[in-house]
Amino acid sequence: MKETQDRVPEHPGELERVGVTNLRTLVKTRAGYRFVPTIEVTVDLAPDKKGAHMSRLVESIVELVEEESSEVQENFESLCRSVLERLEKKHPYSKGRISLETELVIGKRTPVTNRKTMETHDVYIEVINENGKYKKILKVNVFGNTVCPHSKEKIGKPHIQRAKTELTVETDFEKKVLLEDMVDIVEQGFCSPVYTLLKTPDESKVVADMYDNPKFVEDVSRDVIEGCRRSFTSPMKIRVRTIAEESIHRHDVIAEGRYEI
Amino acid sequence: MKETQDRVPEHPGELERVGVTNLRTLVKTRAGYRFVPTIEVTVDLAPDKKGAHMSRLVESIVELVEEESSEVQENFESLCRSVLERLEKKHPYSKGRISLETELVIGKRTPVTNRKTMETHDVYIEVINENGKYKKILKVNVFGNTVCPHSKEKIGKPHIQRAKTELTVETDFEKKVLLEDMVDIVEQGFCSPVYTLLKTPDESKVVADMYDNPKFVEDVSRDVIEGCRRSFTSPMKIRVRTIAEESIHRHDVIAEGRYEI
Amino acid sequence: MKETQDRVPEHPGELERVGVTNLRTLVKTRAGYRFVPTIEVTVDLAPDKKGAHMSRLVESIVELVEEESSEVQENFESLCRSVLERLEKKHPYSKGRISLETELVIGKRTPVTNRKTMETHDVYIEVINENGKYKKILKVNVFGNTVCPHSKEKIGKPHIQRAKTELTVETDFEKKVLLEDMVDIVEQGFCSPVYTLLKTPDESKVVADMYDNPKFVEDVSRDVIEGCRRSFTSPMKIRVRTIAEESIHRHDVIAEGRYEI
Amino acid sequence: MKETQDRVPEHPGELERVGVTNLRTLVKTRAGYRFVPTIEVTVDLAPDKKGAHMSRLVESIVELVEEESSEVQENFESLCRSVLERLEKKHPYSKGRISLETELVIGKRTPVTNRKTMETHDVYIEVINENGKYKKILKVNVFGNTVCPHSKEKIGKPHIQRAKTELTVETDFEKKVLLEDMVDIVEQGFCSPVYTLLKTPDESKVVADMYDNPKFVEDVSRDVIEGCRRSFTSPMKIRVRTIAEESIHRHDVIAEGRYEI
Repeated sequence: MKETQDRVPEHPGELERVGVTNLRTLVKTRAGYRFVPTIEVTVDLAPDKKGAHMSRLVESIVELVEEESSEVQENFESLCRSVLERLEKKHPYSKGRISLETELVIGKRTPVTNRKTMETHDVYIEVINENGKYKKILKVNVFGNTVCPHSKEKIGKPHIQRAKTELTVETDFEKKVLLEDMVDIVEQGFCSPVYTLLKTPDESKVVADMYDNPKFVEDVSRDVIEGCRRSFTSPMKIRVRTIAEESIHRHDVIAEGRYEI
Repeated sequence: MKETQDRVPEHPGELERVGVTNLRTLVKTRAGYRFVPTIEVTVDLAPDKKGAHMSRLVESIVELVEEESSEVQENFESLCRSVLERLEKKHPYSKGRISLETELVIGKRTPVTNRKTMETHDVYIEVINENGKYKKILKVNVFGNTVCPHSKEKIGKPHIQRAKTELTVETDFEKKVLLEDMVDIVEQGFCSPVYTLLKTPDESKVVADMYDNPKFVEDVSRDVIEGCRRSFTSPMKIRVRTIAEESIHRHDVIAEGRYEI
Repeated sequence: MKETQDRVPEHPGELERVGVTNLRTLVKTRAGYRFVPTIEVTVDLAPDKKGAHMSRLVESIVELVEEESSEVQENFESLCRSVLERLEKKHPYSKGRISLETELVIGKRTPVTNRKTMETHDVYIEVINENGKYKKILKVNVFGNTVCPHSKEKIGKPHIQRAKTELTVETDFEKKVLLEDMVDIVEQGFCSPVYTLLKTPDESKVVADMYDNPKFVEDVSRDVIEGCRRSFTSPMKIRVRTIAEESIHRHDVIAEGRYEI
Repeated sequence: MKETQDRVPEHPGELERVGVTNLRTLVKTRAGYRFVPTIEVTVDLAPDKKGAHMSRLVESIVELVEEESSEVQENFESLCRSVLERLEKKHPYSKGRISLETELVIGKRTPVTNRKTMETHDVYIEVINENGKYKKILKVNVFGNTVCPHSKEKIGKPHIQRAKTELTVETDFEKKVLLEDMVDIVEQGFCSPVYTLLKTPDESKVVADMYDNPKFVEDVSRDVIEGCRRSFTSPMKIRVRTIAEESIHRHDVIAEGRYEI
């Protein structure tokens, strides 16, 4: 007898994405870096199938974790691809997707006193296998600041605020794009990068740099795009979205652009 | 002398959306229903303009609120359109957008004891004016439940959980689509609608209905699509996404479909 | 036969708070101001009772809404008290509580151009009836800013950021404390109040005021406390917590104090 | 000349907690388990000090991370204590606190097919040093379910839903309390534990167990308390709070108790 999931549904219809979401488990990549991402894995579902076999999607993740000593992953993207390849043998699909939301921690040096500091960024990695063709979507969320050129010009005193830029790239799986480079491009787009640790001489330099480099939220988004054009090769889809938490308002301001290079 | 915003930026480039976001203010519609939505208003920005005049975007909202007694809005969508029309006179744009996130409260009767109850749903309304052509995107988030057909069949005992469906429609501004109808279509897709108030006889009926009508998350999404096909007229883009908070897992399951009718 | 809820539980034990939470419905107060708060209503439960009759807690809210035309409430606190009084007749308790989370919208004028603007603040109202004695907890969350006195002194250029202060007061129900006054006290504690609408001359004044009035997050919290001491009468418990979203860091800074006056 | 922070503030007043919050960095404990917690570190501030030296609080964390190879921590609590001890030498305080919010991942076996599965729980660890006396607050958030005894009795068909219990213990630093044991106590309080991976025979057992063990949200909280009484030794403060995401309502139900053992 057919499993419930394999029956014909009352209202047949294709579903683009069926699967598990908000699943958190422990995985690791080659450098021994372990992390607990929030994972979503989905497959498309044919019109004549009532449901997906959800536990097989979970197995594709869980088994990979178990075997991690023998098959440690190079990076987040290769981990994602391994799940989709493993899933293909367990549950047929035309279009399979997996996404991870996690943190990327990057060591830096403070700008004057040269102290070690660790900077943490939210990142998102999605890999899609559509009929054997793999592509990836990479996203970084980076904190920085804006310094208002308009009030600086009008009264010599800019209002300043924290800003956050989300940079997304979509490209073929094979194209090499490092999350670390994406973070770096965004940081160069702000009035100044920000740091977790700043001793007084570091802070003075960061603040002086900010005053020397006033930018609207629009400038930040455009300058990040410019950085992508200089660093990345076509073909690639890029989206940049900067939101500044205005210090003179209760609301935020936003500047977003989409481009193909 | 040109305002800072009107200068040519260092890296000229078009931006698709520039404006204010996460702005909350008090507005009202015809029935005297006042609400405090979270608002985003954006315009596209030409490559040779350094920045948008953000305060004019805010004015388009604030002035409408001030004048509300003389020009009370029929509904959320007409309020959005009025902001975009007003904005056009203050700040040139090719593509202007406004979105509201707010709550829709609908009065109902409990199914057996016929008691009055009020049901609250998150809704999202977006109106876009692109070169004089208006379209709208309407979204409702409705709570319900799923009752597992697989475990019901296997052992006669289904696991049950809360589920949430987000239904989105995108269509011409003129086409009449009521948020209340969208909520109703989603509620018909669940194993049973849910209620804020349930006396014991009401609860017994709701639970009995749930056991008589087991559905996977995939069934709910397909049945909502079927409801849209019966109720709405083409052309329209529809997206339905159901997420069930599994009572036997820590993670959720998801079923999403996109259609054009 | 006893209802399930009225049986003796397997492990008898008193519960301090049993009830409904995250309930949203439409209510209104005297000025015709309607709002959709998130509500929690709980009662204590005796050791020998298996469960509370949850639907009676919901009824206490829903019935009040139905009858609102005949019994419109003066303000949020009196609405809360009415629910607890009504609940007492439906479900016995020693300690009943209700809380509302909602928004308070206050009309203001911009500081130079005298334009109308509406300012929205998150507020929280809790009323507790313990054996007939009523007390209340009122909380406002207000946005403002900090301007760093240390970097201003060191290099003449302060870093600036949005800050948010939560002011909480706990006092007898009868003592008159206006949420609007609490908001005003917090706004006076910042380097400058902030506004939803600011035309250029308004913005220039706000920014100039900020530079003339640099404050650490610690100064803001202390100055809010000082404002409470001047405005309120004893006995009252006060807590103030300011968090600044540092524009030079990824993390926030916090200053919190608790006092009895 | 005195640093700005060391001056007397305009309105002198003691602050209970001044410091950094929402700071995320990479740390590790003995088993090589690396994690990225969200950290808050605060000290009390004397009435005559304008501000804390925030960068010294950050250093106490960052330096510990740098030196982690030589001083790897046993567990989350000892890591917290090390930060407070290190901080004492950098910044005087009477009351220092640190909290970490992070995830705890526990390996389990599925109940019938004996498959490996990983279960992830949100945990919170706070350590407080008040004049040399150390205490700790440990919190776990664990997912499970409730199965309604009332509807099961009335019509033989219970409504079922996901529930979440937060168990908090406050005790001396020295008393041994494992987060893993706290998770286990909570899981025993639900109608059944839940699992990330469940094959059909596992799922059937979990669901059958749930139907055999119906519980109100009140029962879950009381049974968790009972588990604490059996497992932990006095003196200890305990708080348990269970919230069930009702499958027949839009709102949740809550049962909370506080105890000293």
